[in-house]
Amino acid sequence: MQINQLKKSQANSCLFPNSRKVYIETPTFKLRVPMREIQLSPYIKSNGEKEINHPICVYDTSGPYTDPNYQVNVHKGLPKIRESWILDRGDVEALPELSSSYGKARMNDASLEHIRFKNIITNPLKAKAGKNPTQYYYAKQGIVTPEMEYVSVRENQNIEKLNATRKNKIKTYITPEFVCQEIAAGRAMIPANINHPECEPMIIGNKFKVKINANIGNSAISSGIEEEVNKAVWALLWGSDTVMDLSTGDNIHETREWIIRNSPVPIGTVPLYQALEKVNGKVEELNWEIYKDTLIEQAEQGVDYFTIHAGLLKNHIPKTSKRMTGIVSRGGAIMAKWSLAHDQENFLYTHYDEICEILASYDVGVSLGDGLRPGSIYDANDSAQFAELEVLGELTHKSRDANVQVLIEGPGHVPIHKIKENVDLQKKYCDNAPFYVLGPLTTDIAPGYDHITSAIGGAMIGTFGASMLCYVTQKEHLGLPGKEDVKQAVITYKLAAHAADLAKGFPGAQVRDDAMSKARFEFRWQDQFGLSLDPETAIRFHDETLPGPDSKKAHYCSMCGDKFCSMKSTHELRELACEKEELSETSTSG
Amino acid sequence: MQINQLKKSQANSCLFPNSRKVYIETPTFKLRVPMREIQLSPYIKSNGEKEINHPICVYDTSGPYTDPNYQVNVHKGLPKIRESWILDRGDVEALPELSSSYGKARMNDASLEHIRFKNIITNPLKAKAGKNPTQYYYAKQGIVTPEMEYVSVRENQNIEKLNATRKNKIKTYITPEFVCQEIAAGRAMIPANINHPECEPMIIGNKFKVKINANIGNSAISSGIEEEVNKAVWALLWGSDTVMDLSTGDNIHETREWIIRNSPVPIGTVPLYQALEKVNGKVEELNWEIYKDTLIEQAEQGVDYFTIHAGLLKNHIPKTSKRMTGIVSRGGAIMAKWSLAHDQENFLYTHYDEICEILASYDVGVSLGDGLRPGSIYDANDSAQFAELEVLGELTHKSRDANVQVLIEGPGHVPIHKIKENVDLQKKYCDNAPFYVLGPLTTDIAPGYDHITSAIGGAMIGTFGASMLCYVTQKEHLGLPGKEDVKQAVITYKLAAHAADLAKGFPGAQVRDDAMSKARFEFRWQDQFGLSLDPETAIRFHDETLPGPDSKKAHYCSMCGDKFCSMKSTHELRELACEKEELSETSTSG
Repeated sequence: MQINQLKKSQANSCLFPNSRKVYIETPTFKLRVPMREIQLSPYIKSNGEKEINHPICVYDTSGPYTDPNYQVNVHKGLPKIRESWILDRGDVEALPELSSSYGKARMNDASLEHIRFKNIITNPLKAKAGKNPTQYYYAKQGIVTPEMEYVSVRENQNIEKLNATRKNKIKTYITPEFVCQEIAAGRAMIPANINHPECEPMIIGNKFKVKINANIGNSAISSGIEEEVNKAVWALLWGSDTVMDLSTGDNIHETREWIIRNSPVPIGTVPLYQALEKVNGKVEELNWEIYKDTLIEQAEQGVDYFTIHAGLLKNHIPKTSKRMTGIVSRGGAIMAKWSLAHDQENFLYTHYDEICEILASYDVGVSLGDGLRPGSIYDANDSAQFAELEVLGELTHKSRDANVQVLIEGPGHVPIHKIKENVDLQKKYCDNAPFYVLGPLTTDIAPGYDHITSAIGGAMIGTFGASMLCYVTQKEHLGLPGKEDVKQAVITYKLAAHAADLAKGFPGAQVRDDAMSKARFEFRWQDQFGLSLDPETAIRFHDETLPGPDSKKAHYCSMCGDKFCSMKSTHELRELACEKEELSETSTSG
Repeated sequence: MQINQLKKSQANSCLFPNSRKVYIETPTFKLRVPMREIQLSPYIKSNGEKEINHPICVYDTSGPYTDPNYQVNVHKGLPKIRESWILDRGDVEALPELSSSYGKARMNDASLEHIRFKNIITNPLKAKAGKNPTQYYYAKQGIVTPEMEYVSVRENQNIEKLNATRKNKIKTYITPEFVCQEIAAGRAMIPANINHPECEPMIIGNKFKVKINANIGNSAISSGIEEEVNKAVWALLWGSDTVMDLSTGDNIHETREWIIRNSPVPIGTVPLYQALEKVNGKVEELNWEIYKDTLIEQAEQGVDYFTIHAGLLKNHIPKTSKRMTGIVSRGGAIMAKWSLAHDQENFLYTHYDEICEILASYDVGVSLGDGLRPGSIYDANDSAQFAELEVLGELTHKSRDANVQVLIEGPGHVPIHKIKENVDLQKKYCDNAPFYVLGPLTTDIAPGYDHITSAIGGAMIGTFGASMLCYVTQKEHLGLPGKEDVKQAVITYKLAAHAADLAKGFPGAQVRDDAMSKARFEFRWQDQFGLSLDPETAIRFHDETLPGPDSKKAHYCSMCGDKFCSMKSTHELRELACEKEELSETSTSG
């Protein structure tokens, strides 16, 4: 497999000029937490004096791909950084073979040899009998795991180093103990399957940086394995905190293996999609056994969280009959159809205890799906949606009883004035479990721009308390997103999540904004590019009208031109003010 | 002058498939209010039954350019629809010649012949002695002008016709009398210079649809007359409600004439920019006489509103000394520099009564500039900004005393949690005068995406009560926007303004969203495109993966594919539910 992008992006300098990969060692476990350090140039004052601008560190989701000392080899997969942390706890054991019949069958199918990942996990880890390997279990015991310490350092974005050079010190409140408490309270989760040792731990919770998720996955219409692995890496290079593989076409088992083995970020899936493939798309033929085997198959591959549509009950379905757009969640539509066809309660609900047992054995988090999320402004906040949300609350408690980490999924399409109610009810029903929201889209009239209509809703719901935003691309409602769509959506959601971090007063969030503003005011163009979420676009836009190296030193840009640059004027103003002051001081003293 | 775009766009079908221009006659003055009617196709049910979908009307800013019965001729300019309304009031008279010395000089300069608009206004209108031709003056007398009736029909977007086919009737509260009351209270304004008879009246106020403004204008670095006229028309074709001409380069007098004569939307300017050009960019050489001559020059050309930075006082300047980005308003920076250089109070403040007298004579609205708006997250809501806002309140009352219509300009760069305070203080200080806001940008770290960072702030501030949003393009901070940037920004701001309309519960706002959602659910692809803010982009995105006419009838798209389309599933589900019901009815009765 030729993955050109991986090679190209290995040097930070390619996507992120003036950046270098750094690692911060954690105090207790001596773990290496990656960050991206952005170098800044000095400010040359008009009198020639130099003022040093210290580098800043930013959160880095790109994993080893941006480490110049690491040789990318997608056939080998990423280093298993968590392996010893997991084994040292002594609560898991390697199985003699895969447990799922589907997983075994695929492994023994010689015809798949050419698309199979070579270093596949053949002896997955599982909890020892009577043991609980979940982060939630440890948090409840008050035990700080390496994962917890790792995320505590990661969230602080190197505030200690920053504080050494700042006048206004940033209060660093994210300690490992704080992380532990938030997880114990169920207000945060670290998606970290014991079979995904390549994963660099990250935390999802309202008291932490707002995270974003990128959905990838082939549909039956288009795209293959290489393209999907490329998309996953592409998304995390630009800043996606987790990736959901929503593939529904052929070879999704093998595609998933490639993605997980090469992913430094948590991977989520909707197991129902694959279960449906196994019965050739015939919803009526779905059953618990096939679904259960799929859960185990994917848990042993290392999926970090599963979306499970267990909250959509049979009696909710009539509540959707007057909707404008019915049931727009794929999983929701499948389970509703199954329920109606069999005249039985949703089997994900009736088997929820067994689901939890499986998830706890591998520390797979559950993301309780909102099968009845609204698909239009018209349907927002209706009785179907909130009836399901109440059941998600019930399932939250069941999950916690089984030591399973929980996320709650939210809508969808919601006008601005109805967004807050979603957060309020979610907090109430689900006891402050972290909220993971798709958008929401704040209007339906802008296909082609739904990354924007939904980033508006995303920034707002993040401000109100959502912990992770699932991106929506500009292709939403129109077609399968390609690489450029993925990038646009990731950057758009990064800025929306960051706007929410600023609004929430997340410690240190404003450091990057301030560095950018200072660079603007001092006409340090290269630093402005380096500090951008998307340097290549910023450079390209700038160079469209003012290309060449000289323009990168100019004290204006083509927007206002030389004479009308207000920042240039302010500098002149300040100099004038200084002169006047000196003059008046001289005249006073004279 | 070759303006290809104008010809190309004359047929609605080019930019807006399935649309046609319609005119609604007003009840009293029998005026023709333009709207765009979007035709919808019937829903073909699975049993072959047809369900009619009635066309909907949307607000139309595109003027005669989209009227197939109108022959575009940019050399002639647009029809003067307001001429008789203005003259019939009997409060204005045609002047024997231009009043401004600069205007005269330009007209008599033979070397400008090749760039001069041919049908230039040579005998501008002006108030008769002792008369007040402003909309505000008439509103205060309780007199409904044709302009007021026109906007009342325009704002309702043909709700009456809609109601004829709807079960849930929309309450139509926007009567001409309501418009009159809102203007009289100073809560709304109709920018409508008596010398811009080509202008189709529109209203700016919190109780009305949120409007958007597009900034165009060449800088010294790039772009010429033809390009700017093209950009103006381009912006209003896509939905811009007003256009500000911020040109700062050569021939701005002539460029402006071309733009106004060809503009069906109000044109705003910042006269200070041209005044500065007249003294070759030397701020110290600015003076009241030059500025005054510029006001008159532009008022007689037909500019509908002026941004005037009269609120920035000398004692505010020291408050900016600790700012991260100083003074980022071009006008603000100029006036601060002038004040400091001359050690005198801002001459726009000291001459404000005379300014009002000029503005009232032509019904030019004042847009009180926020010269001290923050240029970074760091500087948001600081004492300099709010000190100036308080002075804008004082000037609001002065303007009203002189019968001048008022807008208040707002920032800029503001994090989400500080947005509401801007609206609250603006309402308080400026007695609910309409608020006209640039963005605001909710983070500084996304150059290249500032249309999005600012649309987030724009949608929110619109929800809180701002009446017009000034767009920010993706080129902001990087360079002069081109045509594609203008379009992206207009569409982005249309959707943000619309999201705010939904949130405010503006009557009828949701009609288009509902029509779109219904078209989605019924797989009427052509209707989805027709209802989009930007049909060509929606079609292009769709066709990237599923081209050809057949795909426009498909009951899925490439995003989820055939098997996983949730909307398709919902239809099957509903059919299943119907069958079950019939079955159970049969068995009950049997």
